[in-house]
Amino acid sequence: MAQKGSISVNTENIFPIIKKFLYSDHDIFLRELVANATDATQKLQKLAGIGDFKGELGDLAIRISIDKENKTLTISDKGLGMSEEEVMKYINQVAFSGATEFVEKFKDIDTTSIIGKFGLGFYSAFMVAEKVELITKSYKDVPAVKWTCDGSTEFSTEEVEKAERGTDVILYLNSESEEFLEDHRINEILNRYCRFMPISILFGKDTEKVKEGEEETTVEKDHVVNAVQPLYTRDPQSLKDEDYLNFYRELYPMAEDPLFWIHLNVDYPFNLTGILYFPKVKNDITLHKDKIQLYSRQVFITDNVENIVPEFLRLMHGVIDSPDIPLNVSRSYLQSDANVKKISNYITRKVADRLEELFKTDRVLFEQKWESIGLFVKYGMVTDEKFFEKAQKFCLYESLDGKLSTLEEYKERIKDNQIDKNGNYTLIYTSNPAQQDIFIRAARNRGFDVLKMDALIDNHFISNVEYKLEKVRMKRVDADTVDKLVETDTQLDVALTEDQKKQVAEIFKKATGNDKLDLEVAAMSGDEMPVTIVRPEFMRRMMEMQEMSGGNGGMFGFNGFGTEKVMVNGNHALVQKLLAADEEKQSQLARQAYDLALLAQGMLKGEALTGFIQRSIELVD
Amino acid sequence: MAQKGSISVNTENIFPIIKKFLYSDHDIFLRELVANATDATQKLQKLAGIGDFKGELGDLAIRISIDKENKTLTISDKGLGMSEEEVMKYINQVAFSGATEFVEKFKDIDTTSIIGKFGLGFYSAFMVAEKVELITKSYKDVPAVKWTCDGSTEFSTEEVEKAERGTDVILYLNSESEEFLEDHRINEILNRYCRFMPISILFGKDTEKVKEGEEETTVEKDHVVNAVQPLYTRDPQSLKDEDYLNFYRELYPMAEDPLFWIHLNVDYPFNLTGILYFPKVKNDITLHKDKIQLYSRQVFITDNVENIVPEFLRLMHGVIDSPDIPLNVSRSYLQSDANVKKISNYITRKVADRLEELFKTDRVLFEQKWESIGLFVKYGMVTDEKFFEKAQKFCLYESLDGKLSTLEEYKERIKDNQIDKNGNYTLIYTSNPAQQDIFIRAARNRGFDVLKMDALIDNHFISNVEYKLEKVRMKRVDADTVDKLVETDTQLDVALTEDQKKQVAEIFKKATGNDKLDLEVAAMSGDEMPVTIVRPEFMRRMMEMQEMSGGNGGMFGFNGFGTEKVMVNGNHALVQKLLAADEEKQSQLARQAYDLALLAQGMLKGEALTGFIQRSIELVD
Repeated sequence: MAQKGSISVNTENIFPIIKKFLYSDHDIFLRELVANATDATQKLQKLAGIGDFKGELGDLAIRISIDKENKTLTISDKGLGMSEEEVMKYINQVAFSGATEFVEKFKDIDTTSIIGKFGLGFYSAFMVAEKVELITKSYKDVPAVKWTCDGSTEFSTEEVEKAERGTDVILYLNSESEEFLEDHRINEILNRYCRFMPISILFGKDTEKVKEGEEETTVEKDHVVNAVQPLYTRDPQSLKDEDYLNFYRELYPMAEDPLFWIHLNVDYPFNLTGILYFPKVKNDITLHKDKIQLYSRQVFITDNVENIVPEFLRLMHGVIDSPDIPLNVSRSYLQSDANVKKISNYITRKVADRLEELFKTDRVLFEQKWESIGLFVKYGMVTDEKFFEKAQKFCLYESLDGKLSTLEEYKERIKDNQIDKNGNYTLIYTSNPAQQDIFIRAARNRGFDVLKMDALIDNHFISNVEYKLEKVRMKRVDADTVDKLVETDTQLDVALTEDQKKQVAEIFKKATGNDKLDLEVAAMSGDEMPVTIVRPEFMRRMMEMQEMSGGNGGMFGFNGFGTEKVMVNGNHALVQKLLAADEEKQSQLARQAYDLALLAQGMLKGEALTGFIQRSIELVD
Repeated sequence: MAQKGSISVNTENIFPIIKKFLYSDHDIFLRELVANATDATQKLQKLAGIGDFKGELGDLAIRISIDKENKTLTISDKGLGMSEEEVMKYINQVAFSGATEFVEKFKDIDTTSIIGKFGLGFYSAFMVAEKVELITKSYKDVPAVKWTCDGSTEFSTEEVEKAERGTDVILYLNSESEEFLEDHRINEILNRYCRFMPISILFGKDTEKVKEGEEETTVEKDHVVNAVQPLYTRDPQSLKDEDYLNFYRELYPMAEDPLFWIHLNVDYPFNLTGILYFPKVKNDITLHKDKIQLYSRQVFITDNVENIVPEFLRLMHGVIDSPDIPLNVSRSYLQSDANVKKISNYITRKVADRLEELFKTDRVLFEQKWESIGLFVKYGMVTDEKFFEKAQKFCLYESLDGKLSTLEEYKERIKDNQIDKNGNYTLIYTSNPAQQDIFIRAARNRGFDVLKMDALIDNHFISNVEYKLEKVRMKRVDADTVDKLVETDTQLDVALTEDQKKQVAEIFKKATGNDKLDLEVAAMSGDEMPVTIVRPEFMRRMMEMQEMSGGNGGMFGFNGFGTEKVMVNGNHALVQKLLAADEEKQSQLARQAYDLALLAQGMLKGEALTGFIQRSIELVD
């Protein structure tokens, strides 16, 4: 027999799930209850605004108090309160969102600041309380009512006396939750979740010294927890740099001042306000991540903005507030949310625009801050295709002499000396100025400019630039002997016969005891080093990639020494000396020249280094 | 007026929450539905076992099938099925756990393997389906029934024809979930969540070549996804090493064979079975973490066992199955759960016992595997107080000559030579044999034993050992000049007047151009290096700690060069030579000796290194 019907939810079974499963973090109960109190207060303000409430609003602050003796935590508001009928409707029916209905009823007036979902949030109280009392008196002329529930599905209500309008929620904390009787815990939670809520929240006292005539007395005042109108909700026109800096210092008391900032303010096609700061970024990018705080209508949601802002923008600091970001849902869901994608793209565009503006209007300042901006820009270029395009205009390349150029400017700078035989601009860089010093000097003596690419991100940036741009080749300063760094058609001669070359190679193989030495007797200028160890660009990068991906030598058969090549300078005076010397002297000379080449590449270690030092001491001695 | 009543849950509002909020991972719908099917099948087996079901059980496999044309995914079981009345009760009342009731009813028989919570899990289907049909025929002689719901709270039922006993759940996938029409996705999910479920699950076909006489034909067979009786559920007595190794290879196809394993089997005070493997651990510990898989009654739960097993045991691999671990609840809740604590302590004890047993019964094997075991043991000792105590007995210290000793054995070994004037055993170690080679040679020449402490964990381990053990001091091999590594009362003389000492110090300050050089003209043996740069143990460790915590020089005023001390060997021949030389020669000799000392400490870099190399080439040339 065919039937139709409604699915029902079994309260007794779903109740523990709501209490335990819905929020992964117990602290959140306080956010939920304060948000409800804020909600009730704002609703009353709305009603007063349209004349539906004609009484005195009075002091509307929300008060939080602890009673250690009775082990209770109380949240009191002076909002619109509830009649018994309303308690039955809003409290006793879980997930009946009072806010939804309120917004529906008053949809012609501005209700975007109504935050609460009275239904579910309220029940998070039972995560920490064994009993909850709710004492409420409506703004309407009806008796106050007290509702009690011990966390089962049974409740009781009774009429009570209550002098003032509003709602007190009294939590009788369970034995595992007595931490919430400590001032510092409550302060911690309020500071995290409620610092920008739009109604004043009072907790604890501040003492203040007041002078009355001759006498100084100490006065206690309620401590206000929150800033009801945080900077990002205010009109940018009315704000000064100092305001932005102060706001930053409040958010990140331990951080250095930021470089600059962007005030976000969108109404369409989504709602978003916020301030994003560019921090001073240090080399280790990961330390700086995930400092952005996400709010929804001034209620703190999370500081994990993964999937909401693009990867590289997670280096920024600041606050984003949007009612259009779906909350508490799974991360995989977020990724496919259309609003989230729009927001993400919007922020990327804004950031690129701001950087371009700064570059155009104050290049001097932009260059001063490039050390920090650069990491950020390069990270963005590597991870975000669209940002790469935009950032081309203001991404700077730093030469070792300190000069900063855009790619176009840099090409102009090196065009006489560093275009290879195929028409490619050869950008020569160092990944470690201290370690590659001897190569850098050789290159600069040859009139080449050397770029400083020593940040962690540069490794990726280099491959990325080369891949995306045409006619640009990147070469590390030790990728080849200095004559061959920029490939030309002209070739140097070497003043040796083929037989002599073979003889030289043999001498080195014998002296180093390494028969398999990858060695070339090369045509180089006589004033270069007698022996140079080079690390060809392509092989080195392959190996680095492999190391980064956690492999250790397997896939390509590299073994750490496979990428080096020994270049003996056929035109150096030492070679003639070698050929003329007796066998013992040959070995000694070749060994020392080879050790010095290893030393120049930071490859002389362990026993070999000890041997070298001991021989050298004897020379000094 | 006082009232009592029951809280009700508003279905329309809670329904979207159940669908979207409860599971953060969409894939889980399939686990839930297969678990339900398993549940229904096991219940039927139980009923047959006690004679309440007298029919043929027949083939009980669960079958999963995809219909790409109609975009449906179907899960079919041959379990006990449902009558219309039961559908109304179990399906239409969300969170009415059929399993709870079943266990209650048959509490005298063993029902621990009943896994389902039919109520909630079933509704996870609506995460991926726009419509769900359930066609079911009870094992009792009643008509089959079809239930349909489009994800709203409205359903319909009707009588249908169904030949076989059991339940088909047909999901009409929504447009965002068409990925679940792909075989590889379903295989992936089944392999992750259902591989050990206790009823056979069939999905797709295997082809097999069969020879019949002369002819070879290809036969298709149902592909069985799961192992219904995984190794850890079997009696350890009946298992061979090869069985454990094969199980490991199935779990981690890419890994090397494990070192050894522990078969866990507890009934009281909690239920736990499982196999934990010691993998071959490489230096980078983080790569190996979180490979343990957690199951509850053969249903996969998670491979994030944080808070369930102690931090250091997360390096192990394998499977833990326990119905006593609370699931799906918040991590902070897990931490305080008494069962979780007991389980955690139990596993720690078992692991320590196993290691001790291996050490005692086969020390040769234990030593062979120490490279991997050591990282694990040291990590455990650093992070777990109780494990530290136990591991004292089998933690080995490796000398550079390859010898492995327990601390007691090692003390015996060094007692003649390395007890300082305060009665402390001085353990001399190297953190980098290649880089500290020259210091190591000096120490070994002096008859000291040098320990190899070059793993990442050793840094922590060293401080930890020193802190927890009495009369043990750890000193890096370059912490002082070799004569002072072990503090004694005997003092060497230096053959210089105070004036000469001052003169030598001045020569070095001048030659290095560094007026603030922290330099001492020390009484050393004449055959040591003329200049040695030492890094005093305490200051160096403070600096390393600070670096690890991300600081860069601020807190203690270190700057990377503040912890080195230059020791000039007052008894080296060079010093006399220096004092006798003219000013130019003095500077040249001192500079070279100082550079060689920097080189021995890996501190000669950049311009200074280039200068040194160029001067040295001239010497060779």
